Amino acid sequence: MLAVRLNAAGGVEASAKLRTPAGAGDVIEAVLAGIAHVVEGTSESSATLPLGVGFPGMLDRKGTAHFCPHLHSVDGMDLGRLLAQRRPPGTTTLVLNDATAACWAEHSVGAARGLDDVLMVTLGTGIGGGLVASGQLFEGSHGFAGEIGHMVVDPHGPPCPCGKRGCWERFASGDGLGRLAREAALAGKLDGVVKAAGGDPEAVRGEHVTEAALDGHPEALAVMEEFAWWLALGLANLCNVFDPAVIVLGGGLIEAEQVVMGPVRRNFVDLVEAPEARRTQVVPALLGEKAGAVGAALLAAERAA
Amino acid sequence: MLAVRLNAAGGVEASAKLRTPAGAGDVIEAVLAGIAHVVEGTSESSATLPLGVGFPGMLDRKGTAHFCPHLHSVDGMDLGRLLAQRRPPGTTTLVLNDATAACWAEHSVGAARGLDDVLMVTLGTGIGGGLVASGQLFEGSHGFAGEIGHMVVDPHGPPCPCGKRGCWERFASGDGLGRLAREAALAGKLDGVVKAAGGDPEAVRGEHVTEAALDGHPEALAVMEEFAWWLALGLANLCNVFDPAVIVLGGGLIEAEQVVMGPVRRNFVDLVEAPEARRTQVVPALLGEKAGAVGAALLAAERAA
Repeated sequence: MLAVRLNAAGGVEASAKLRTPAGAGDVIEAVLAGIAHVVEGTSESSATLPLGVGFPGMLDRKGTAHFCPHLHSVDGMDLGRLLAQRRPPGTTTLVLNDATAACWAEHSVGAARGLDDVLMVTLGTGIGGGLVASGQLFEGSHGFAGEIGHMVVDPHGPPCPCGKRGCWERFASGDGLGRLAREAALAGKLDGVVKAAGGDPEAVRGEHVTEAALDGHPEALAVMEEFAWWLALGLANLCNVFDPAVIVLGGGLIEAEQVVMGPVRRNFVDLVEAPEARRTQVVPALLGEKAGAVGAALLAAERAA
Repeated sequence: MLAVRLNAAGGVEASAKLRTPAGAGDVIEAVLAGIAHVVEGTSESSATLPLGVGFPGMLDRKGTAHFCPHLHSVDGMDLGRLLAQRRPPGTTTLVLNDATAACWAEHSVGAARGLDDVLMVTLGTGIGGGLVASGQLFEGSHGFAGEIGHMVVDPHGPPCPCGKRGCWERFASGDGLGRLAREAALAGKLDGVVKAAGGDPEAVRGEHVTEAALDGHPEALAVMEEFAWWLALGLANLCNVFDPAVIVLGGGLIEAEQVVMGPVRRNFVDLVEAPEARRTQVVPALLGEKAGAVGAALLAAERAA
């Protein structure tokens, strides 16, 4: 869990990293602790502080969590009300999806600055998404817009915890890369990678195959190519639907620039409709792991103004 | 090709149906003939007439056609400029994608009246799409938004004329229904339907299986159920991404209400993420085949105002 304090220009003045606790009540306590951490030492009176909080999962416009597969403990909780009750006196709170918040940050002060139609794609355990349409944050009719990870791209594909088969995040998230790598390892490939993972093909993770690919191992590069194809397939689908000026990719994974962004861009041009008529760019995020927190803070400030 | 003249309230005052010619130059002539047809007899001076024209395919914001798989002859043509050169003196012209125009019509005077976030899905030879986001027509950064038919939903699926495999419209358009029906017929099912199509399984079309399903034939109903599953799969994908208040289905096919809308709604609830938290409705279009023409005219009038 990451907390940041921004200055008036949107720059990060203070930040704190906390472990996300398992229990639901503890999550709220941890959020408040994170806020206290970054507010401490600020010269402004707390009465002027708008607080923004991004959570992974489907949050409605009132801040109730409806479906949070990666933070199950808060499912069904009215996070907006709970934080409003516990926030420091005089502050305002805004609660929203973290990838939606990250999209606003990249649009406001990051890789998509100055562009009106933006798709943000964050690759982690799952795949999160955010949309800016005609210069406005697009949250959808309930606040659920951007649940792109559960776009089914192969109905015969592997089962997803959501209950369906072949959701995009089974192939193209950080966890998806791990799954593709384990499949290759179990098929007798990736010897060196299996060794680095301790000898058990089932222990192979995305990081292992990414490192081997960066070292130039052909079998690892083949897995990265398969991963990039699935990632590009979903990006092409979303580009056909939404026609963004830019697609911003976030998540630790994309830092392996030469074995991820290159293959993704190449496959994207292959898969999107009428690529020769488009100027849509696929770019890495600028704000890294801070994007969600920065976007939530920026939005809270804008809506409090 | 359909031409309409609207009154100030958006009602259709006159309409004309023309055959779409094959040649590119002839398409422009036919559009002008359609306009002349409905303008004839109007009491208003032509100087006050805004003209809107919807075409199937990817049109950029200037009106250049970039990818029109179902009207190949206009591919690459600057339709906006050609119509501007040939339009009756004093009129204004607006050129855009027909499903985008249809979405605006359903939002303004049809099934999605009063709703801010709308997804329009038109089922024909292919699948067209239109989006209204936060009450505004969303056209994307180039004008290409809504190319939903080429969302890949099964990379191992049948080849698509666009060059990819398993595009949604291979399964869930009018043509897609015909393909599913021919597959069933070639597998020895649908005896009665094959007879109705003249005895050749390859001659089976969507209409044949729809009629048999309406008559209660179990094998035809099974094909309709498969079709409804694929249609609902894509709708669920798009609902996860875009979170509309309503999804409006258009195209002749959906007029077979009891064998299409019922199964589609049931499968949609099965496939969309967190259905219990959503109020998104799937409804049939109200404006029928006139939606594209009505929407183009409404938009032309709004932008000329």
